[in-house]
Amino acid sequence: MNEILEVEPICRLETGIRGFEHVSMGGLVEGRNTLLVGTSGSGKTLFATELLYRAITVYGRQAVFVTFEEKPADIARNVQRLGWDLPVLVRDKKLIILDASLDRSVVEAGGYDLSGIISQITDAVKEIDAKLVVLDSLGALFYQFENPGILRREILRLTDHLQELGVTSVMTAERMEEYGSVTRHGIEEFVSDCVIILRHQLSDEKVRRTIQIYKLRGDRHYKDEFPFSIESKGFCILPLSAAQLELTQASTADR
Amino acid sequence: MNEILEVEPICRLETGIRGFEHVSMGGLVEGRNTLLVGTSGSGKTLFATELLYRAITVYGRQAVFVTFEEKPADIARNVQRLGWDLPVLVRDKKLIILDASLDRSVVEAGGYDLSGIISQITDAVKEIDAKLVVLDSLGALFYQFENPGILRREILRLTDHLQELGVTSVMTAERMEEYGSVTRHGIEEFVSDCVIILRHQLSDEKVRRTIQIYKLRGDRHYKDEFPFSIESKGFCILPLSAAQLELTQASTADR
Amino acid sequence: MNEILEVEPICRLETGIRGFEHVSMGGLVEGRNTLLVGTSGSGKTLFATELLYRAITVYGRQAVFVTFEEKPADIARNVQRLGWDLPVLVRDKKLIILDASLDRSVVEAGGYDLSGIISQITDAVKEIDAKLVVLDSLGALFYQFENPGILRREILRLTDHLQELGVTSVMTAERMEEYGSVTRHGIEEFVSDCVIILRHQLSDEKVRRTIQIYKLRGDRHYKDEFPFSIESKGFCILPLSAAQLELTQASTADR
Amino acid sequence: MNEILEVEPICRLETGIRGFEHVSMGGLVEGRNTLLVGTSGSGKTLFATELLYRAITVYGRQAVFVTFEEKPADIARNVQRLGWDLPVLVRDKKLIILDASLDRSVVEAGGYDLSGIISQITDAVKEIDAKLVVLDSLGALFYQFENPGILRREILRLTDHLQELGVTSVMTAERMEEYGSVTRHGIEEFVSDCVIILRHQLSDEKVRRTIQIYKLRGDRHYKDEFPFSIESKGFCILPLSAAQLELTQASTADR
Amino acid sequence: MNEILEVEPICRLETGIRGFEHVSMGGLVEGRNTLLVGTSGSGKTLFATELLYRAITVYGRQAVFVTFEEKPADIARNVQRLGWDLPVLVRDKKLIILDASLDRSVVEAGGYDLSGIISQITDAVKEIDAKLVVLDSLGALFYQFENPGILRREILRLTDHLQELGVTSVMTAERMEEYGSVTRHGIEEFVSDCVIILRHQLSDEKVRRTIQIYKLRGDRHYKDEFPFSIESKGFCILPLSAAQLELTQASTADR
Amino acid sequence: MNEILEVEPICRLETGIRGFEHVSMGGLVEGRNTLLVGTSGSGKTLFATELLYRAITVYGRQAVFVTFEEKPADIARNVQRLGWDLPVLVRDKKLIILDASLDRSVVEAGGYDLSGIISQITDAVKEIDAKLVVLDSLGALFYQFENPGILRREILRLTDHLQELGVTSVMTAERMEEYGSVTRHGIEEFVSDCVIILRHQLSDEKVRRTIQIYKLRGDRHYKDEFPFSIESKGFCILPLSAAQLELTQASTADR
Ligand SMILES: Nc1ncnc2c1ncn2[C@@H]1O[C@H](COP(=O)(O)OP(=O)(O)OP(=O)(O)O)[C@@H](O)[C@H]1O
Ligand SMILES: Nc1ncnc2c1ncn2[C@@H]1O[C@H](COP(=O)(O)OP(=O)(O)OP(=O)(O)O)[C@@H](O)[C@H]1O
Ligand SMILES: Nc1ncnc2c1ncn2[C@@H]1O[C@H](COP(=O)(O)OP(=O)(O)OP(=O)(O)O)[C@@H](O)[C@H]1O
Ligand SMILES: Nc1ncnc2c1ncn2[C@@H]1O[C@H](COP(=O)(O)OP(=O)(O)OP(=O)(O)O)[C@@H](O)[C@H]1O
Ligand SMILES: Nc1ncnc2c1ncn2[C@@H]1O[C@H](COP(=O)(O)OP(=O)(O)OP(=O)(O)O)[C@@H](O)[C@H]1O
Ligand SMILES: Nc1ncnc2c1ncn2[C@@H]1O[C@H](COP(=O)(O)OP(=O)(O)OP(=O)(O)O)[C@@H](O)[C@H]1O
Ligand SMILES: [Mg+2]
Ligand SMILES: [Mg+2]
Ligand SMILES: [Mg+2]
Ligand SMILES: [Mg+2]
Ligand SMILES: [Mg+2]
Ligand SMILES: [Mg+2]
Repeated sequence: MNEILEVEPICRLETGIRGFEHVSMGGLVEGRNTLLVGTSGSGKTLFATELLYRAITVYGRQAVFVTFEEKPADIARNVQRLGWDLPVLVRDKKLIILDASLDRSVVEAGGYDLSGIISQITDAVKEIDAKLVVLDSLGALFYQFENPGILRREILRLTDHLQELGVTSVMTAERMEEYGSVTRHGIEEFVSDCVIILRHQLSDEKVRRTIQIYKLRGDRHYKDEFPFSIESKGFCILPLSAAQLELTQASTADR
Repeated sequence: MNEILEVEPICRLETGIRGFEHVSMGGLVEGRNTLLVGTSGSGKTLFATELLYRAITVYGRQAVFVTFEEKPADIARNVQRLGWDLPVLVRDKKLIILDASLDRSVVEAGGYDLSGIISQITDAVKEIDAKLVVLDSLGALFYQFENPGILRREILRLTDHLQELGVTSVMTAERMEEYGSVTRHGIEEFVSDCVIILRHQLSDEKVRRTIQIYKLRGDRHYKDEFPFSIESKGFCILPLSAAQLELTQASTADR
Repeated sequence: MNEILEVEPICRLETGIRGFEHVSMGGLVEGRNTLLVGTSGSGKTLFATELLYRAITVYGRQAVFVTFEEKPADIARNVQRLGWDLPVLVRDKKLIILDASLDRSVVEAGGYDLSGIISQITDAVKEIDAKLVVLDSLGALFYQFENPGILRREILRLTDHLQELGVTSVMTAERMEEYGSVTRHGIEEFVSDCVIILRHQLSDEKVRRTIQIYKLRGDRHYKDEFPFSIESKGFCILPLSAAQLELTQASTADR
Repeated sequence: MNEILEVEPICRLETGIRGFEHVSMGGLVEGRNTLLVGTSGSGKTLFATELLYRAITVYGRQAVFVTFEEKPADIARNVQRLGWDLPVLVRDKKLIILDASLDRSVVEAGGYDLSGIISQITDAVKEIDAKLVVLDSLGALFYQFENPGILRREILRLTDHLQELGVTSVMTAERMEEYGSVTRHGIEEFVSDCVIILRHQLSDEKVRRTIQIYKLRGDRHYKDEFPFSIESKGFCILPLSAAQLELTQASTADR
Repeated sequence: MNEILEVEPICRLETGIRGFEHVSMGGLVEGRNTLLVGTSGSGKTLFATELLYRAITVYGRQAVFVTFEEKPADIARNVQRLGWDLPVLVRDKKLIILDASLDRSVVEAGGYDLSGIISQITDAVKEIDAKLVVLDSLGALFYQFENPGILRREILRLTDHLQELGVTSVMTAERMEEYGSVTRHGIEEFVSDCVIILRHQLSDEKVRRTIQIYKLRGDRHYKDEFPFSIESKGFCILPLSAAQLELTQASTADR
Repeated sequence: MNEILEVEPICRLETGIRGFEHVSMGGLVEGRNTLLVGTSGSGKTLFATELLYRAITVYGRQAVFVTFEEKPADIARNVQRLGWDLPVLVRDKKLIILDASLDRSVVEAGGYDLSGIISQITDAVKEIDAKLVVLDSLGALFYQFENPGILRREILRLTDHLQELGVTSVMTAERMEEYGSVTRHGIEEFVSDCVIILRHQLSDEKVRRTIQIYKLRGDRHYKDEFPFSIESKGFCILPLSAAQLELTQASTADR
């Protein structure tokens, strides 16, 4: 029981993403895992990549990007227009892009095991002394496990390992509808310490992008939806939503 | 048949949570189990922890926290910002945090059995003469049972044991949508004596937290939704909701 | 074919529950089974218990309460606040509370059989010459049967036996939503002679309790929803709902 | 191919139910089967019984009532209050009530066969030279067949036999919601020549009963919902619904 | 690759059904299959029969009607009131009504094969040199195939054969709701060249019949819903719907 | 890790379809795969064909059309009315129409393999030095794979191969409802680089066609729904939707 006597305070990691420190009231939670949930095209990969890019270029923290389906070259290519030069970061040993899709052949061979990918991540983190790890996307992984009980345990095992590594991590997860159940399986959101939802909602033939800090164990944060846009230099979260403006007084107590 | 001749009256246990005694008309039911239901991030773990914290610090009752997924250190860490110093309570033998996640390895081994965790709880309760037991969260446990009939019986067995131990207990349970079926399986709410629902409902891009005493066998209580906020010292349930205010006269009869 | 020549008229059994004789136009149907359907916490057990209590104390009819999950002592305890002293009725041989949960261990052993519980009920009815039997709740029972065809037949077997015993009976059944399909399986309501629905509907953060005589084979009754409250002495059904008031003339023909 | 040269015209059978000849534009289709669909308590059994009762007492046609779950005595008892004395009709050999529930024991024995009940019906029809056969309710029967393909074929076989017997027949079928898919399995309505839907819809705490001739192959009929009430002497369908009144001109072409 | 050099233009086959040439902008597509989709009672069989009747009597083209569930005599009988004398057409060798329901016994014998029915159709088409073939309804057929992949392939095989025969064909298919997924299995509509939807929608207790040319590969057509009625001589599609009237200008471009 | 140092910029391929360059802000993404999603009849095949036709006739790029269900002759025939003469393009070796439906017989033989079709595509692409490949439709293919994990991997394998071939490609995919989950299986949209949705939505009896660039990894694009019509020469996307007009200022930032 002695172990819990040494509890460290919740610390926040600034992200450098415009508006994010405001809506999250300080950034990501250091040393923990954050689940980034959204439908296809909602901006999960882009958001996770900007997290890495800012961590490296603004705050000087190395990072590892684990990609389960897209190829490393495609990840890099997709953010070129935003002026984020990932190849340079890779060359300078500030970023490692791990291609976990190589494991794809295991799919048919019954029992799947996360050990391989966990040890690869560990090596990469140590190689460049990374502080941030992104895993994109868990969707590909989930079909490997026959039942939700095992899936739930495996996610826990994975986040436990990341926590032991001492890194702050971000995982992306898929959902099929903009509202309702948070994730496709209704499992990941319960075992995660932090959950962020990205939406691109179509209403009246017009699309509106929003971000919501759905859950953040251990600290205060805004809980409302905030509109955001993807501009020429990256994400831009509007710090005060319409809802926010109206409620400035009422909501100061509950965040 | 004689046994039922010795029926003891329903007693309430004050919780010290601001507003809760009012909406529940007296607090938790002593010696019984209360189910705390909510979506991820609705505040289940925090509410259960404040129950423990106030029980110990305000009323001098020892308590046991059984965690099925989060680690004890994380539980403690998540409430530091609220000024609840769990490590000190553990050191002073007022609180035991039982890590039931250690049993996780059993998952794959077919037949699951609650006996292990039940005897651990019994030992902990006796060790510090605990009056309150929190189990957070049953979600992890439920995948162990193949069919709903067995799940239903196991929950009953567990609550029977807790009742025999003479403790007041609180279990948390997961749901995936804010309205509709109370729990994920539609089972736990039927076998529980008391059900409290926590919600964080998004409407018009704004989130509203509410608490509802959904069911409380054996006594009166308010049944409406009451807004609450998580403030710097913990939960604060507004004693009179808008709905309440309008209906003060009409609802005096039915609670 | 001769048997049907001796058809007895439908008789009603007064219940003594405030407002119920009015909305049901006379009370329960004597010698038949009534299904009491509701979500958790809707008041099924309490309503069934008041039926027993009034039958014994107001009309001098003995009764049997068969409980499938709650313990007899808890049943008694839950109604103490309402001033219904069940232990005294048990002592005076006016009430038997049968604990059918003892059979719980059979769950895992494949083929389930209602014969045991049927013979226990028969003995209890004969022992005190009971006129009313309550079974609460069928929910626990239903997981025993693999397919809906067998479930349907078993419910029929059970109600046939109760009818042969000559008693009036009430069974409670679970539903998960306030509207839509009457019961969880969409089976029980079709094989029952009478169906009463209890609701506690949340709308605009406020809860409203209502009762509806959904079906009553063989006789007239009101079919609308009537609001009710649980007051210090028990149920109180408001005899004229708002809907009722408006429609007094139009609905005199069709009930 | 010669057989189809002898096509007989569609004839209607008057029912004597108040308003039904009007909404159906002539009554049931002679020599064919009509499916009577409704939720529990919608009035299927009562409507089918009034069809029999009027056929015998008003038009002097003998009839057979095949009951799959309710006992003959209960069928008779349930209509006593309406003044329909079935025992007398049975005694006078104008009505046979066949108890098909006796076959219930076959349920568990895999392969189910309708041959037994078909030959019983044939005997009964011949014994009293019946013109009308009612089967209530198919619900009990449907669990016997493993897959919808077999179920579909069996219903066809049954209605083929009834048609060969030369009788006009009515089958009742269950549905779980007032709107949406016509029957529980979405099968019976496609193979039936005529479909009538009975509804008791709850809206704003008030119940409204309606009847709709959903489908009637081979002839004209009204297709709208008509309100009806169950009065002291039986069904009373209001000949002009509100919708009807407004649309008198527009709908004269399409019925 | 040479084969595709001989592409014949899309030709239309006039139907003679009042209003249909207008809404379809020319009639059925010659030599192709059209899927006629609707709930039970929506008018599929009647529409398909009028197609045959007009083809024979107005345009002098022979036709084959393949019925999978209804008996040939019933098909003929159901249109007598509309003045369509099918027996005379059969006698004059202008129409063959094929009873495919005879194959019903094969249901239980695992592997089902369309070859039998295909060769029967081929013979009938050749016997009277038919130009139009109607298959009513595929619903009965679909339960024969275990998985949707095989079902999809079999429908393709059937329509390929019909196309090779050089006939224009119409198949009816079932749906359970008036809106949403086009067919019950969500398969047939994707493999068909043309899809027509018939609806009889209940709203506000009143039924409205409409027809929609949902899809017509290779040519222009109106895509809106048009109201129709079944009058004393057959279908009558109103050439300009309310929606149409308002949009005359806007929709001239897109049809 | 060196490989990612050679990242090429995202290039756009003009399509020549009226309005498409505007809404997509430049056309298709060169060298990548675009998923074209829509219900039956939404215009997927026509849109994909116009892409090919314009590529060949306007920009002088050869193309391959892989058809999984419709016959090559039917594809050509369906666009004749639009003045697109595919046979001439085939004769001139600018277009190859591959009939992948020949593989249909493999369906029943368990394990399915995309290798055959992949090598056929490779040969065709090399034969005419094609730059654009269309695959229509994946729907037929998907029933071959038993579980979604394998399906997901096979789609990735297929698009990987197309990317390695250096061609720009377009695949069509089916959906059953106009809104909600993007594709039938909720899989393809997550693994695709670009997703375009075609809709033909019925509201108030009138149909409205719209196109939406749902997702386009790596570059800017409009995300709203734009109305389009199929005119005598092909697609015509209105460059400014009503929604667009209203929002011209607000949306300049986020595209
Ligand atoms: N340079 C850019 N400028 C503006 N918007 C861009 C730019 N690049 C990408 N986008 C937008 O970002 C979207 C892609 O986001 P992203 O790939 O992060 O989505 P995702 O949530 O990871 O989706 P998936 O689950 O399908 O991988 C594109 O659809 C596009 O709308
Ligand atoms: N110090 C704090 N101040 C304000 N709000 C806080 C604080 N700490 C936590 N919260 C709020 O409480 C939420 C977490 O609550 P909690 O962990 O009890 O949820 P939960 O219902 O147990 O969720 P899960 O099912 O995912 O475990 C956070 O998302 C945050 O919004
Ligand atoms: N003394 C009382 N005064 C007022 N209300 C009471 C009293 N006792 C119980 N109640 C109300 O009755 C509810 C419990 O009713 P009851 O146990 O009959 O429900 P139930 O339908 O049987 O639920 P379940 O299916 O969960 O057993 C409580 O939630 C409470 O709201
Ligand atoms: N004498 C009567 N006067 C008025 N209404 C009556 C009378 N008898 C029965 N009813 C009404 O008829 C309903 C029962 O109808 P019926 O038994 O025909 O329903 P059902 O559709 O057959 O239901 P189930 O599917 O459950 O058998 C009762 O619920 C009651 O509302
Ligand atoms: N002579 C007639 N005059 C007017 N309406 C008629 C006439 N004959 C039939 N109808 C209408 O046509 C409907 C039957 O249409 P039809 O048999 O074509 O439906 P369907 O779509 O084939 O249904 P199912 O799928 O159940 O076979 C009847 O319900 C009736 O409303
Ligand atoms: N010449 C034309 N002029 C106008 N519209 C046309 C023309 N040809 C086809 N159409 C329209 O295009 C539709 C067919 O489009 P297409 O075949 O591309 O659909 P699809 O999405 O591929 O459907 P499916 O999934 O069923 O194959 C037709 O239903 C018709 O409305
Ligand atoms: Mg992504
Ligand atoms: Mg928690
Ligand atoms: Mg109860
Ligand atoms: Mg009935
Ligand atoms: Mg038909
Ligand atoms: Mg197509």
